[in-house]
Amino acid sequence: MKNSIFLLVTLFFLTACQSNEVHAPVKLERESPNLTLDPDRYNVAFLIMDGVYNTELTAPYDIFQHTIFRKNIKAMNTFMVANTLEPITSFERIRILPDFNYLKPGLPKIDILVVPSAEHHLDTDLEDEAMLSFVREVSQSAQFVTSHCDGAFVLAKAGILDGFVSTTFPSDIDQYKKTFPNLDVRKDVLFVHDGKFITSAGGAKSFEAALYLCEHLYGAEIARSLAGGLVIDWDLEKVPHVVIDKQAN
Amino acid sequence: MKNSIFLLVTLFFLTACQSNEVHAPVKLERESPNLTLDPDRYNVAFLIMDGVYNTELTAPYDIFQHTIFRKNIKAMNTFMVANTLEPITSFERIRILPDFNYLKPGLPKIDILVVPSAEHHLDTDLEDEAMLSFVREVSQSAQFVTSHCDGAFVLAKAGILDGFVSTTFPSDIDQYKKTFPNLDVRKDVLFVHDGKFITSAGGAKSFEAALYLCEHLYGAEIARSLAGGLVIDWDLEKVPHVVIDKQAN
Repeated sequence: MKNSIFLLVTLFFLTACQSNEVHAPVKLERESPNLTLDPDRYNVAFLIMDGVYNTELTAPYDIFQHTIFRKNIKAMNTFMVANTLEPITSFERIRILPDFNYLKPGLPKIDILVVPSAEHHLDTDLEDEAMLSFVREVSQSAQFVTSHCDGAFVLAKAGILDGFVSTTFPSDIDQYKKTFPNLDVRKDVLFVHDGKFITSAGGAKSFEAALYLCEHLYGAEIARSLAGGLVIDWDLEKVPHVVIDKQAN
Repeated sequence: MKNSIFLLVTLFFLTACQSNEVHAPVKLERESPNLTLDPDRYNVAFLIMDGVYNTELTAPYDIFQHTIFRKNIKAMNTFMVANTLEPITSFERIRILPDFNYLKPGLPKIDILVVPSAEHHLDTDLEDEAMLSFVREVSQSAQFVTSHCDGAFVLAKAGILDGFVSTTFPSDIDQYKKTFPNLDVRKDVLFVHDGKFITSAGGAKSFEAALYLCEHLYGAEIARSLAGGLVIDWDLEKVPHVVIDKQAN
């Protein structure tokens, strides 16, 4: 009898310990108190770091975030990922709190990855192997990967633009071609859509690239409505852009 | 002798205490570790609060902040003021850290006040007497007070637009006229400049209002250069706007 009790107690503790080890919830590396991720929406992650340019973050952020106010569409959950949960400082010196640390567990599945430009996307950021590896990994399963301005340098350095047509910030086109001579690069366009990649000239034209994706996903009426909310007169036909239709070739 | 020493010691302590009271530096209610305010520049304060719209904050912020990279002009120190130093959450749910608490001592002199729109600028924010009082006070000494989108409601509620022509977000024009029937309101323009006030339609057109102020202060060449940095093709003559020239009347 004593042995049975000993055995039962031992089993109980073993089970309890094992259970604690196996089933303990992963600590979500996120701090946003009010961020809700509706499972019926696209998850849209914005990759930020020190030196991110405000406009290339907020222009697509606003277009995409405002989809939650449109009816009968699969809207977008928008959030920011960084390699820290500490505030990042934008190029223009606005301090922003990331929502998730992409180096830690608990990151939601990313359907659309947005890479705004940052101050060091032509130099030190291209040596950040952990960041490049994150971009590479997400691009495997994401439905869309988009860049604004020099964000294209990050995609290209990660190797995911090989075989795809792309563009970047107008005055960095030559540097882009020189750094990635194997790429097919277009200039004098606001954005290029090839496969899952949408690369944009950036700056204030980041609105147009984001509106294009919305028109692609939701149709022209929704895109016009999102544009109107930001006092933009949207007509895709008037916007210089390139869409590569591989099936047509 | 003992009395003299006692007197000297007493005097020393009295002086020390008084000196401490009078000359102790006021604690700056600010947290930005890297914010520097060059005394030779304009101080440009952006008034933010929960619900601030990203684009109406970042569009003018970027145009103005980039002036520090242009030579031979009186550039702009840009910073954000709020009624807290805790993170504020924008309408689109980006968490931003303010630079200064305007309710506390240590605020720099403000040359240009920018009021971006926020979610509750048509309702509860208009009951925030401390905020309205701050706007009213700053407007006394500022060289320019600008609003984007519904930020005009804040200026109007503060009473500082009386006698001045203004505009606001296109679809809120009727509500604006109804709320402030004494105001001279213009529609179908991107911005109105009257005296020290520049009121803008907002949204993505907040870039244009900020570029206008830069053209006004620095000339067309600098404005075009700032616009180019954000991939904007700037030509003031092509932008529908109103400038009230009281001397001409």
